[in-house]
Amino acid sequence: MAIEGTTEKREPRIRLGMVGGGSGAFIGAVHRIAARIDDHYELVAGALSSTPEKARQSGAELGLAPDRTYDDFRSMAIREAKLKNGIEAVAIVTPNHMHYPAAKEFLRRGIHVICDKPLTSNLADAKKLLKIAEESDALFVLTHNYTGYPMVRHAREMIRNGDLGEIRLVQAEYPQDWLTEAVEKTGAKQAVWRTDPKQSGAGGSTGDIGTHAYNLACFVSGLELEELSADVHTFVEGRQLDDNAHVMLRFKGGAKGMLWCSQVAPGNENGLKLRVYGTKGGIEWVQADPNYLWYTPFGKPKQLITRNGAGANAAAGRVSRIPSGHPEGYLEGFATIYSEAARAIHARRKGLPVDPAVIYPTVADGVKGVAFVEACVASSRRNSAWVKV
Amino acid sequence: MAIEGTTEKREPRIRLGMVGGGSGAFIGAVHRIAARIDDHYELVAGALSSTPEKARQSGAELGLAPDRTYDDFRSMAIREAKLKNGIEAVAIVTPNHMHYPAAKEFLRRGIHVICDKPLTSNLADAKKLLKIAEESDALFVLTHNYTGYPMVRHAREMIRNGDLGEIRLVQAEYPQDWLTEAVEKTGAKQAVWRTDPKQSGAGGSTGDIGTHAYNLACFVSGLELEELSADVHTFVEGRQLDDNAHVMLRFKGGAKGMLWCSQVAPGNENGLKLRVYGTKGGIEWVQADPNYLWYTPFGKPKQLITRNGAGANAAAGRVSRIPSGHPEGYLEGFATIYSEAARAIHARRKGLPVDPAVIYPTVADGVKGVAFVEACVASSRRNSAWVKV
Amino acid sequence: MAIEGTTEKREPRIRLGMVGGGSGAFIGAVHRIAARIDDHYELVAGALSSTPEKARQSGAELGLAPDRTYDDFRSMAIREAKLKNGIEAVAIVTPNHMHYPAAKEFLRRGIHVICDKPLTSNLADAKKLLKIAEESDALFVLTHNYTGYPMVRHAREMIRNGDLGEIRLVQAEYPQDWLTEAVEKTGAKQAVWRTDPKQSGAGGSTGDIGTHAYNLACFVSGLELEELSADVHTFVEGRQLDDNAHVMLRFKGGAKGMLWCSQVAPGNENGLKLRVYGTKGGIEWVQADPNYLWYTPFGKPKQLITRNGAGANAAAGRVSRIPSGHPEGYLEGFATIYSEAARAIHARRKGLPVDPAVIYPTVADGVKGVAFVEACVASSRRNSAWVKV
Amino acid sequence: MAIEGTTEKREPRIRLGMVGGGSGAFIGAVHRIAARIDDHYELVAGALSSTPEKARQSGAELGLAPDRTYDDFRSMAIREAKLKNGIEAVAIVTPNHMHYPAAKEFLRRGIHVICDKPLTSNLADAKKLLKIAEESDALFVLTHNYTGYPMVRHAREMIRNGDLGEIRLVQAEYPQDWLTEAVEKTGAKQAVWRTDPKQSGAGGSTGDIGTHAYNLACFVSGLELEELSADVHTFVEGRQLDDNAHVMLRFKGGAKGMLWCSQVAPGNENGLKLRVYGTKGGIEWVQADPNYLWYTPFGKPKQLITRNGAGANAAAGRVSRIPSGHPEGYLEGFATIYSEAARAIHARRKGLPVDPAVIYPTVADGVKGVAFVEACVASSRRNSAWVKV
Repeated sequence: MAIEGTTEKREPRIRLGMVGGGSGAFIGAVHRIAARIDDHYELVAGALSSTPEKARQSGAELGLAPDRTYDDFRSMAIREAKLKNGIEAVAIVTPNHMHYPAAKEFLRRGIHVICDKPLTSNLADAKKLLKIAEESDALFVLTHNYTGYPMVRHAREMIRNGDLGEIRLVQAEYPQDWLTEAVEKTGAKQAVWRTDPKQSGAGGSTGDIGTHAYNLACFVSGLELEELSADVHTFVEGRQLDDNAHVMLRFKGGAKGMLWCSQVAPGNENGLKLRVYGTKGGIEWVQADPNYLWYTPFGKPKQLITRNGAGANAAAGRVSRIPSGHPEGYLEGFATIYSEAARAIHARRKGLPVDPAVIYPTVADGVKGVAFVEACVASSRRNSAWVKV
Repeated sequence: MAIEGTTEKREPRIRLGMVGGGSGAFIGAVHRIAARIDDHYELVAGALSSTPEKARQSGAELGLAPDRTYDDFRSMAIREAKLKNGIEAVAIVTPNHMHYPAAKEFLRRGIHVICDKPLTSNLADAKKLLKIAEESDALFVLTHNYTGYPMVRHAREMIRNGDLGEIRLVQAEYPQDWLTEAVEKTGAKQAVWRTDPKQSGAGGSTGDIGTHAYNLACFVSGLELEELSADVHTFVEGRQLDDNAHVMLRFKGGAKGMLWCSQVAPGNENGLKLRVYGTKGGIEWVQADPNYLWYTPFGKPKQLITRNGAGANAAAGRVSRIPSGHPEGYLEGFATIYSEAARAIHARRKGLPVDPAVIYPTVADGVKGVAFVEACVASSRRNSAWVKV
Repeated sequence: MAIEGTTEKREPRIRLGMVGGGSGAFIGAVHRIAARIDDHYELVAGALSSTPEKARQSGAELGLAPDRTYDDFRSMAIREAKLKNGIEAVAIVTPNHMHYPAAKEFLRRGIHVICDKPLTSNLADAKKLLKIAEESDALFVLTHNYTGYPMVRHAREMIRNGDLGEIRLVQAEYPQDWLTEAVEKTGAKQAVWRTDPKQSGAGGSTGDIGTHAYNLACFVSGLELEELSADVHTFVEGRQLDDNAHVMLRFKGGAKGMLWCSQVAPGNENGLKLRVYGTKGGIEWVQADPNYLWYTPFGKPKQLITRNGAGANAAAGRVSRIPSGHPEGYLEGFATIYSEAARAIHARRKGLPVDPAVIYPTVADGVKGVAFVEACVASSRRNSAWVKV
Repeated sequence: MAIEGTTEKREPRIRLGMVGGGSGAFIGAVHRIAARIDDHYELVAGALSSTPEKARQSGAELGLAPDRTYDDFRSMAIREAKLKNGIEAVAIVTPNHMHYPAAKEFLRRGIHVICDKPLTSNLADAKKLLKIAEESDALFVLTHNYTGYPMVRHAREMIRNGDLGEIRLVQAEYPQDWLTEAVEKTGAKQAVWRTDPKQSGAGGSTGDIGTHAYNLACFVSGLELEELSADVHTFVEGRQLDDNAHVMLRFKGGAKGMLWCSQVAPGNENGLKLRVYGTKGGIEWVQADPNYLWYTPFGKPKQLITRNGAGANAAAGRVSRIPSGHPEGYLEGFATIYSEAARAIHARRKGLPVDPAVIYPTVADGVKGVAFVEACVASSRRNSAWVKV
């Protein structure tokens, strides 16, 4: 159990900027809390909205200094890069289509980027960003936050250790219900941009939550997808992007699987669930109850592994904060991404290699995610033909 | 709450014969218990094994009269049809390939048939049997027993009433783990015939459990399948039939869905689960916890409807035996199929129409099930092309 | 897995009579189904109601011969004892106050008694009945049916094997909600007699469900109660018997525990739950989900033991009928009591000793149950003073 | 949904000191994270250990300025009270016996106190502290952190609104298993002081977790305890304080209940659970799964109310940070106590009344908690006699 502040020697806080995340945003506030939880960051600058007026007001509300509240991300990148104590890292929390142009500005100036998913709104941008990130000295961290949950780490480590044997099946799903009706027509901000192809890209549910499920499936199983067959659909009349997708998966090496994502399944809030089955055992994990991992060694009783409980491994304990039975949640999992990024940044500061135990989703993972979305759409257009990814 | 024996006027017991189900069989004993629970039947004759010696020994063990213990089903059909108090109905509980020849003999002689699923081992037989059944005065009842669970009845009735609105999504799955290893090579009887194409037909997991999931999906949703795209696979080396199938579904009218069946998913005993989502709400039902139905009216809290509890409807209450909170199980659900059949047979005896509330799976449902299996196999051979059913 | 009819050599059915259980009764029908499930009994006689007219009508409905449908239990006992093929056993399913006079008549005539709980409506009767039963050649079986659940058997066997170490704590509860309002005033039959001290005795919830929880606690833990401290209460105005009881328990040997029973706890149908903790581990079992037993070996992950699943022991398998993952329920657990009784009766028939694996609640258990009720009432009257039992 | 930083106008951070919570401590780190989550505090001073050397080292690790790292709480109180920008509030996170002397120093100097529970190690100290707090201008906030969980707030509000009718029953429990063996003998710091009467006071499990369960029961139900009857016990040989307690409760107005706390119940991590039943309905809440509240309106299906989900009320939404389906946990609940305190402190700063919606446990709640512990011990010494509290 790594309680922050007691077992790790504290490094000076990382100076953080933020792009997006002004008043009324959802994920910006999440990033800010995540950055605070383990106390590795200090938010000192922001271009919090594409509307200058709102950007300034939001900066004031967050207590940012007026001269570090910017009207747009480009001026922030330019000026902060020149400041003696300018930002070392930036969180990008805008709609998808702005990830690429914003990330580019900071990476090119050596400022680390912590970016929300999906990586970009199209594969071309994603590949360009990959190249830019590879050429930059700065780190690129993608907030596939579910990979920060301790029991997800536990599951991944089990599979790496061979506890499940050879993996045969990966069943992933992420149903929601909040787009069951055409709420985007009511002007609800979160719905409007997520159903707008200009801001989101080619995928609706596939981009917003399908990429999470896909990333989690690969992260935990250690497998790489070879091809997929998808039936992507929009149920709500007039909606411009998909709100449901059924996808069959074939992984390299012979494992198979399914992925279902939906935003029109009443009774599901954020029903992300992953099941992996191998020759020696199976596991099941549900995001809404993240402190539990169900593990069945074939031929033995099912076990309930709990975060920091008896049976939890070091990979889980490393990213836990409190004892078992006291639940950690979504914000803590998100904070772990920030803290892993901080550990990598600290190592960079000192010119040291990053501890191999440190794990975070990368730009390459992001490219895979965007490729997944586009492959789903392509397969579906070809009446579910198998498409290589 | 319809407690048998107290609220229904009792009819004389139906004289029942059985084909298959001798020593060592699994499903034969289940049928016998199911026939006894509500006391509508009396087992009086049997051709309990294809091995005459074993047939006689099994008959003796069950207390059948020696002259009504037959060496083969054909002699049973011939003789019982002539007896004054010969059997009125027969339960066929053999491996799949014997369903057709056995059922034919009894139907042609006007003896009602209660037959285990899948209907037959191939579609040609299924269609012939359909014709024979249509031409017979006798009833044909297929034991898709999961349709007998009260909360399944409840769910079906809700959807018929429009409580879920227009149905958009049907997610069905039936994972098991008992064939994770090649147990058929150890001679385990249940595994041997289920993995033998001569006895089972073209489908392994698809026939054995996929048909159950498919039947349940249609029974509850009221939808008819239009086409499917399947990726059927055999994971265990040397196994002759599939042990896993991923299937995408398109229903008439526009609903979509997925079906996953597997016999190699460690940690799953009989994990049949059905979820149906419509424009107004969603439901979820799990066979292992059958007394519960989760129902979410869109925009309201999830409700836990319990068998015979507050909120359970008449369709569920009609087939319940005991108060809520005292669980009914698999055998009671199976018994309901037998009791529904009995109600239909009683009506036939009297020349009355069958109460429309009486529901049981028919030979037509069975044809659909076999067509489903063959469509899965055909689609998979064509690299998951969509196949009409 | 002991599937009835296939693995046990079948004995001729036991001729069974029934006292009580006519039209409108609840538990009578349960007993009849329970007696049929494993096919060890044939119901041939009955005194099904204290109202002769209703007794005859109920007998006719159940298909009993008119000459074996009796107006009262005494004439049934007298005549059946003389018949060549008279009943061998009788099920007594009346309100509590009739258990003693009815049981006496049959035991004295060597007819085995299967009697609903609690044993009697007062401790004096209970003790007299104990003496009569001890002097009789006939068996006395009390239907504390929850002891028939396979996972209850599993738990008991674990504790006998020392898997939990020395037992320290026994936490039992049985909340219901059906008497939250004064339904007895609406004439509801089940409520009327259960709240009537003349028919039920001194205990309301304590007698009806507290005795079940107490019996289960002792059955599983293997402990004997030494003394109790109770706060028994009637919440519903005008009700004559208790509808809630809080009880602290001290067992011989030093273990402690609590028992809560209630009929006024909205949201609880039949919430019987037992938890036992020892120096080496703990278990938890919930009646509404009876196929599961939670077991935690101290310092290791919690395990989910399932009926007939991996890890289920022989004591559970012996009384299971179907494979794991296919739930058995209340009626099967009840049937196990009947089948255990049948095995004992079969042994008696042959003059053989009863297989020590056969377990059923006895008249002595019944005496303890009535003593428990009276001790609760006595303690409560003395402001919860500790009372020896 | 009150996402911090977006919907509330931000006030300047409150300058916070800490007493206790140095290296190796558990709850200190929890308090620090809780203080950071909603960004209302800045930790600027500390007397982090009673060992000066460790106090200094811990301060350095946390990045405190050396001149604000104190060797003892008294010097911190004296100096900080004089500093222009001295601390405005202090978190006291020592073992119980130090709460009183430390709190006194700060309250007397007008510094707000946020103190861990139980209030003090004995009732005499508790009463003195109550008086001091009443005479102080500073606030006293007790971190009964479970009252910060949104669904606990929801439940409390429901009961205040009369949704459950008149409350009849309150069933509280808090089982753990970490003291099943004598770990205090291995030197485990958390176990050593918790089983030491000099540091903990008269109660072991009763003080450490029983007070939490008791506080929660009163907080949610709105009831006040009148008297209790307890059977308090130490199961582990050589342990100096109780590790298990069974308590019967009688509330003013006629409601009854039970409370069980245990540290020797294997399989329970932090199994705090509360059930409340009234004439119109019942609720159930479990700390390990805190985002759910089970609510049954009598005679209707059970509902699952989720944090920020459909059906969650304003009292819950007010203290939620993220959408439903994304779980919040223990640290967020704890953070809510800190944020409620911050809102009250902000009001004080401005001379405004505190918003009545702001809720936090007070010194008076703390006195009740200590009185509860002492009453349990007193009752148990008198063989469970009812004792007024």
